Amino acid sequence: MPIASTAYLFPAAGLLGIVFTVYLVRITLSKDAGTPEIARFSAVIQKGAMTFLRREYRIMAVVAVFFAILLLVVLDVYIMFTFIVGVVTSVLAGYVGTNIATRANGRTAFAARKGAGHALDVAFSGGAVLGMTVVSLGILGISTVYLTFSLLRVVPNPLTVMTGYSMGASFAAIFARIGGGIFTKAADIGADMVGKVEVGMPEDDPRNPAVIADLVGDNVGDVAGMGADTYQSYVDTTIAALILGGSATTVLGARLGQKGIYFPLCVLVIGLLGCVVGVVAVKVLAQSEKVGPETVLRLGMVISAVVALLGTLLLSRLYLHDLRAFYATASGLVAGVAIGLITEHFTSGRPVDVIAASCESGAATTIIAGLSVGMRSAALPMLILGLSMIFSHRAWGIYGISLSGVGLLSILGITLSMDAYGPIADNAGGIAEMTRQHPRIRRITDRLDAAGNTTAAIAKAFAVSATAAAALSLLTAYSEVAMVKSLDIRDPRVMAGMLLGGALPALFSSMTLSAVGHAAELMVTEVRRQFKEIAGLLEGRAAPDYQRCIDIAARSALGQLVLPCLVAVASPFAIVFTLGREALAGFIAGNIVSGIFLAIFMANAGGAWDNAKKRIEAGAHGGKGSLAHLASVVGDTVGDPLKDTAGPTLNILVELVAAVSLAFVPLFLRLIP
Amino acid sequence: MPIASTAYLFPAAGLLGIVFTVYLVRITLSKDAGTPEIARFSAVIQKGAMTFLRREYRIMAVVAVFFAILLLVVLDVYIMFTFIVGVVTSVLAGYVGTNIATRANGRTAFAARKGAGHALDVAFSGGAVLGMTVVSLGILGISTVYLTFSLLRVVPNPLTVMTGYSMGASFAAIFARIGGGIFTKAADIGADMVGKVEVGMPEDDPRNPAVIADLVGDNVGDVAGMGADTYQSYVDTTIAALILGGSATTVLGARLGQKGIYFPLCVLVIGLLGCVVGVVAVKVLAQSEKVGPETVLRLGMVISAVVALLGTLLLSRLYLHDLRAFYATASGLVAGVAIGLITEHFTSGRPVDVIAASCESGAATTIIAGLSVGMRSAALPMLILGLSMIFSHRAWGIYGISLSGVGLLSILGITLSMDAYGPIADNAGGIAEMTRQHPRIRRITDRLDAAGNTTAAIAKAFAVSATAAAALSLLTAYSEVAMVKSLDIRDPRVMAGMLLGGALPALFSSMTLSAVGHAAELMVTEVRRQFKEIAGLLEGRAAPDYQRCIDIAARSALGQLVLPCLVAVASPFAIVFTLGREALAGFIAGNIVSGIFLAIFMANAGGAWDNAKKRIEAGAHGGKGSLAHLASVVGDTVGDPLKDTAGPTLNILVELVAAVSLAFVPLFLRLIP
Repeated sequence: MPIASTAYLFPAAGLLGIVFTVYLVRITLSKDAGTPEIARFSAVIQKGAMTFLRREYRIMAVVAVFFAILLLVVLDVYIMFTFIVGVVTSVLAGYVGTNIATRANGRTAFAARKGAGHALDVAFSGGAVLGMTVVSLGILGISTVYLTFSLLRVVPNPLTVMTGYSMGASFAAIFARIGGGIFTKAADIGADMVGKVEVGMPEDDPRNPAVIADLVGDNVGDVAGMGADTYQSYVDTTIAALILGGSATTVLGARLGQKGIYFPLCVLVIGLLGCVVGVVAVKVLAQSEKVGPETVLRLGMVISAVVALLGTLLLSRLYLHDLRAFYATASGLVAGVAIGLITEHFTSGRPVDVIAASCESGAATTIIAGLSVGMRSAALPMLILGLSMIFSHRAWGIYGISLSGVGLLSILGITLSMDAYGPIADNAGGIAEMTRQHPRIRRITDRLDAAGNTTAAIAKAFAVSATAAAALSLLTAYSEVAMVKSLDIRDPRVMAGMLLGGALPALFSSMTLSAVGHAAELMVTEVRRQFKEIAGLLEGRAAPDYQRCIDIAARSALGQLVLPCLVAVASPFAIVFTLGREALAGFIAGNIVSGIFLAIFMANAGGAWDNAKKRIEAGAHGGKGSLAHLASVVGDTVGDPLKDTAGPTLNILVELVAAVSLAFVPLFLRLIP
Repeated sequence: MPIASTAYLFPAAGLLGIVFTVYLVRITLSKDAGTPEIARFSAVIQKGAMTFLRREYRIMAVVAVFFAILLLVVLDVYIMFTFIVGVVTSVLAGYVGTNIATRANGRTAFAARKGAGHALDVAFSGGAVLGMTVVSLGILGISTVYLTFSLLRVVPNPLTVMTGYSMGASFAAIFARIGGGIFTKAADIGADMVGKVEVGMPEDDPRNPAVIADLVGDNVGDVAGMGADTYQSYVDTTIAALILGGSATTVLGARLGQKGIYFPLCVLVIGLLGCVVGVVAVKVLAQSEKVGPETVLRLGMVISAVVALLGTLLLSRLYLHDLRAFYATASGLVAGVAIGLITEHFTSGRPVDVIAASCESGAATTIIAGLSVGMRSAALPMLILGLSMIFSHRAWGIYGISLSGVGLLSILGITLSMDAYGPIADNAGGIAEMTRQHPRIRRITDRLDAAGNTTAAIAKAFAVSATAAAALSLLTAYSEVAMVKSLDIRDPRVMAGMLLGGALPALFSSMTLSAVGHAAELMVTEVRRQFKEIAGLLEGRAAPDYQRCIDIAARSALGQLVLPCLVAVASPFAIVFTLGREALAGFIAGNIVSGIFLAIFMANAGGAWDNAKKRIEAGAHGGKGSLAHLASVVGDTVGDPLKDTAGPTLNILVELVAAVSLAFVPLFLRLIP
């Protein structure tokens, strides 16, 4: 197929996005780095985060090289190439985003002296670097690889090699998420269990040896990990849409040809534009200081969504001359927003009060209430996902389902910015506390941090919805390419695959939870040791050994990183070579059903426990120090690894399994008759 | 089809089973009821249990009458009739079983004076009444209804009306399980949280006001509830096998005709025989006192399984002249035993040590460790279920899958006996404690109780496996009868149904957990009140008001019974009338995948927490009164409602949804084009 000259606009749009990102970086770095003390703490956090990321990437690189060689041997050099591009772009996005986020934290703390609006502006600009890097690199990478292979004509269909890209992004993501997830929770639990519970220090006390590790963890987990996570959703969904758009003859009636491939990319470009508008709007609104931070952030998202919707509507009319494309795309976006609102209800509405009340009768009832809320909270989102799927399929077949995913992810730039802003505000609060800033500063950063918790819950819900759309698109693409005739659930191979696929997320969560537990134990021991052995530490006369805690978190995270990743990557092969291609399709489907459920359950249970604790700390049910408070701390500690390690990792697991399956179809077709 | 004269042997076999049960009843009642004090406590427990069951059945009857009228209006009078038979036989089995179990408890405590063997004999005979009643009534009921409709010829195919029977059994089961489950855990938590934790009394202390309610709860939950649960699995699986056997032309190549219908019934009769042999063997071995109770019980199961396997082998050769039937049947039985052994590992092997060790760092890590073990423990059983499904399908198509379920359930008589024996031994221990028997007596009952915990874990695993087989058979039967053409998971209706089906068990568990929490709160308040208001209670000078605690447990259980039951019954209608017949099939499938996972997860996490606590109480990690012990009590309290209420209820939910869907197919076909 010849390339339309307009196609070069896609990489150009990606490049423009990068130019905008560079502008955001310059703005962020142009802010005052603050007092020498603030700058020093910020630098320690940055050094810790970047050192950890480099070590993590090094381990990942070793496994990736082996995997690339495997790709070269059993598939071909082109898939190996796109795989490497997928890994490298993912790493790049996470690295740049974390680098700037860890420079924005101290600047945010210092900007708070000038007022909440200024602090919000700095923190959000820092977070937006990650958001815009991810989407710009996504558009640039995908369109460039596609155009290159179209021009080179080394393969009959350039779309077939795109599966390597998708797999590369998922591959990088699982390392980043698990590594960051273990690090952040080990440090968090260590800081809380010993520093806060046993010794009775306040949050972010500089005498707490694990406090810097905790702040580093926020960055490597919630910035680098989240960036890689959403990057893979973005890439997976888009590539699945391209594949289905390019081959969706059967469902659409008429072959769309290039338009089927260009349309999803156009939607992403429009979304990018919407996000730029949204980011600028947030910055302007923040500086005007007329409304609170929650409202500013939410308005930014609404503006981006409206721009994206209107743009998609115009595009459908003028480019495709077919409004079905709009309906399909919009349904995903609407579903994502609806799921976000439901999440907000369960993690900060009445259910949180129920959990807080149950804290009065002790830790056991707290846990039961949280489990109950988490389970209930998963039902409605799954209903909405199902309805959006049916709707987008009615609008435009399986291509419509993939378009709904593209629509959902088109405004990823702004939702991810809102999410990455959270750890920056959190870090700023920590730095303010450690450098003993005026309480007014701390109040501002606390305010920003609270707003970040709400937006983070929405962004997490978005990520899960995106995973569902991406994985379903990949599943459909897999069964198209793998020429699986029957995926009937009455087929016992399909059903057996579903049962196994349903068990994998549980097995996987078990591994990540154990890893967190193990790492946290080491951290608890170390913090206890420092309190005992470093004379004068408790009285504030001696400084703790922050670096050792960072090292322990890093080492235990990195040591337990490879096994779960290997299990995830190897599982599709184990299924397909023992039970066949049909079973693998069932495996992907079962994995989606139970992975999505568990991801929502864990995210919301964890969020609800967290906020129940905050309510009690704010004075409800006896307030700080009461028995209810102790129970709520147990709930929060249980919820933390669920919502920040095990849960988010499932997003990636679900997509990785589907992406690997799709990429290796040529091998399966050759080996399994 | 004319009826072979040999067909009358089926009801005859069921009747013989009942004769054997009557013999067991007489043996049990012939034992000495013990000292007047023992007899008095036993009578109080019995009165409490029977009163609760009658009230529960009354509520159920009201709903059942409405449902029967609905059946009459939208389907026909015959389905209404079989529905009623299903409900009544289920109630009968549970009622008889509980009646005898509550008479065997005091007798067991008294028999312990003569030695462990005698006590084991009495307790097991009591439990075997439930086991044998369930299977005998099952065979008798199913074969009688089938033969009656075959003779009357009021419907073209007598198998079509059998779906009402299946639905009736599931309907009764969900009431019995939820009601019993809420009662037992409310009483248990009330007795533990106040009596043991707050006041510091030992287990089963007669001064604890909730202690009798707790013992009553064991009977209404683990005897009546478990009986109804397994009765429905037995009935559902058999009826699905009959339907598939009668219409399995396509898969089997040649129509089996009556043999396809008679074969599963023959397997059940052989299994009944095997169970009689097993029960007698246990009684003989118990009295000889040569081996420990665990070994005696396990030997009984092995003997029954071997008899059933050999009998099925002979039957396949001589009656069907086709060994494929044997392979299919045996695969289910082998899978059930394997899953039982895995369960034993996770609930009493090394994983329990890991949880116990994590108790040292507090309640939060205890919970995380238990969640992790529970999740991991579900993976292997789901793999085995998948493999057994593939194997039995290779052996003999979809009919083979249903035969594997029949094979698994053929030895239900003995596994259920082993399970019902547990609460009797537990009750005996409680009565011994309350009547202040010699410590030797308590040691014997503790020993029997511990053996019961192990066998209960195996029996629970059996029940879950049976559910999987039954639900899959029902799903297949549904799609046969409902003439659903495509159940392709790429069909968005199927996939949306799967997502929703995957969410239902979570929603449902959330409801049952909340119900337990609410009921437990009322109980805690009441127990605290009695300790405060009844003068001299703590010093043992005044008696507590046991009856009030029983009333509160009963009232709160009954008050929260109807809503979850209605949700379960109504859900298939909601799906089918909004999303269609294909979506309902997907709904059933998603429900199976996530229901089975959650059921295993909850059962094993709960069991593991329970045993971790027992290990610490036996002296590990600081023993009773240590901080680790406190943490382990939290774990146990969280695990209790998971393993005894929410988890087991899921078995029934999964089957009920499938059974209702199957029974209402004629309506769906009429209303939905």
